[in-house]
Amino acid sequence: MAIQTLADIGEFGFIDRIAARAHTEEGVIKGVGDDAAVLDCGGKDYLLYTTDMLIEGVHFLRTIMAPQEIGRKALACSISDIAAMGGIPTYAVVSTGAPYNTSRSFLEDIGQGFNDLAKEYHVSLVGGDMTRSNRLIINVALLGKVKKDQVIYRAGAKKGDCIFVTGSLGNSFKNRKHACFTPRVNEAQYLLEHARPNAMIDVSDGLAGDLGHILEQSGFGAVIRTTDIPLAKDASLDQALHDGEDFELLFTVPAQKADALRRCKKYRFFEIGTICSKPGMFLVDEKGRKRQIEPKGFEHF
Amino acid sequence: MAIQTLADIGEFGFIDRIAARAHTEEGVIKGVGDDAAVLDCGGKDYLLYTTDMLIEGVHFLRTIMAPQEIGRKALACSISDIAAMGGIPTYAVVSTGAPYNTSRSFLEDIGQGFNDLAKEYHVSLVGGDMTRSNRLIINVALLGKVKKDQVIYRAGAKKGDCIFVTGSLGNSFKNRKHACFTPRVNEAQYLLEHARPNAMIDVSDGLAGDLGHILEQSGFGAVIRTTDIPLAKDASLDQALHDGEDFELLFTVPAQKADALRRCKKYRFFEIGTICSKPGMFLVDEKGRKRQIEPKGFEHF
Repeated sequence: MAIQTLADIGEFGFIDRIAARAHTEEGVIKGVGDDAAVLDCGGKDYLLYTTDMLIEGVHFLRTIMAPQEIGRKALACSISDIAAMGGIPTYAVVSTGAPYNTSRSFLEDIGQGFNDLAKEYHVSLVGGDMTRSNRLIINVALLGKVKKDQVIYRAGAKKGDCIFVTGSLGNSFKNRKHACFTPRVNEAQYLLEHARPNAMIDVSDGLAGDLGHILEQSGFGAVIRTTDIPLAKDASLDQALHDGEDFELLFTVPAQKADALRRCKKYRFFEIGTICSKPGMFLVDEKGRKRQIEPKGFEHF
Repeated sequence: MAIQTLADIGEFGFIDRIAARAHTEEGVIKGVGDDAAVLDCGGKDYLLYTTDMLIEGVHFLRTIMAPQEIGRKALACSISDIAAMGGIPTYAVVSTGAPYNTSRSFLEDIGQGFNDLAKEYHVSLVGGDMTRSNRLIINVALLGKVKKDQVIYRAGAKKGDCIFVTGSLGNSFKNRKHACFTPRVNEAQYLLEHARPNAMIDVSDGLAGDLGHILEQSGFGAVIRTTDIPLAKDASLDQALHDGEDFELLFTVPAQKADALRRCKKYRFFEIGTICSKPGMFLVDEKGRKRQIEPKGFEHF
């Protein structure tokens, strides 16, 4: 029998396995399995809590990203997770691994990229750990807050819901969107006020993979109209479905709330399909032909 | 002019520089610069918040540590930080980087070591991120809680305070203490009840380095009696002063409270010296000879 490796079980399989055996204390409203954990720490709001690790050569290359962009991206990924729960980011702690000979100015530029975005989103950097490493590694853990009746989970999609995304998808690396995307905090707050989504996730692993998480956790299927998927510059349908790092919000709203979003002038929300009772993910093309696709996105393994 | 690198400015210099320029929102009682950040999120208690990154080849070697020990240590380091603030650990999120061909059983054993310690200290694992990496990397961000009037900072030492440590120091790697140390949460809680320390820190970089942090932040000096420093098995005085990874608590208490600790039967507290008004760190040997030493500990660069 072959030894099973991480490549066989994948990121999500592994985290789920460990978490399933983990100890859970009171105050955990939602643990592993959504964009961020939801905690009740006794305050008026719930606390949101997420962690993201960026590694040189996996998530970024120094050759094609400025240090400011690297620092910005490290924080932006985590802010996007908080936004996807309906929250506002608040406090960050950062662990950094860097080679011994990393220049001070390079590191300070990373810090500046981080700090600039932190200021824009009112995030306080409150702690850090710094260590030696053969490659540059940045881990951001981020807290956020959300009103107790406004948390949006992946699991809440309902039959008949309209499915929307906040922006165009695919080809994020070539278009450099992965290096300078806007975390959709403001859009999420607008949605909470005007359309109260039933389910939401950020598209970090491609539309198919991330819609798959919503469908699996909600227990429904989806019909997506390929002609309505907003394709990024030079992106193919396949890239929109399976590329990573778009960091748009993907969400579902009750049909009667959809009109408010279609008419919205402040932000552009792209309606791409409908939640259906039949499990599975179905694409309908411009000629009305329907085919089922796998809920498979970009895997970091 | 030579380019300054991380090696020149060091871990603490760099974090301080970035933090000094960081944006700070309300609710931050203490940001960068102590064992953990202290936050007011509106609840009855303050929130504590810390992050620690462990990298294969820097903080652990697979050849000399079992995977269960690696997982345990990743959490134990962070629990130690929470203990040093007078707090109780609560919620953890973990980012893991691992090579593609890492075996499932190895990773599950890491998870088991983590989970076993989490259960012992009532810590809930509430989120995770998993990515590909050429070396094994584990980052733990940990929250804790502490009563608002019980936070213990590095900066609180007073002239005349007695200085204590919770256990023996030095030679942690050879003795394998670094792989299986006990985070001193219970000891810290006992101290809060019976002696209310003025200042506290965990000894992760050696006695000299970590006492140096207390002295610098408190604006005082210290006289340490070398014969009273509890040396670990086969440890030299030099190792006790400058080795890393002991993870004992180092704290100062008003002289009138010291007796309760000297007589304590439940835990052993080792009294090693006194806080003095003259800045600097002074060692007094068995013959009464006094010499000043540098507050330099183990640097991870």
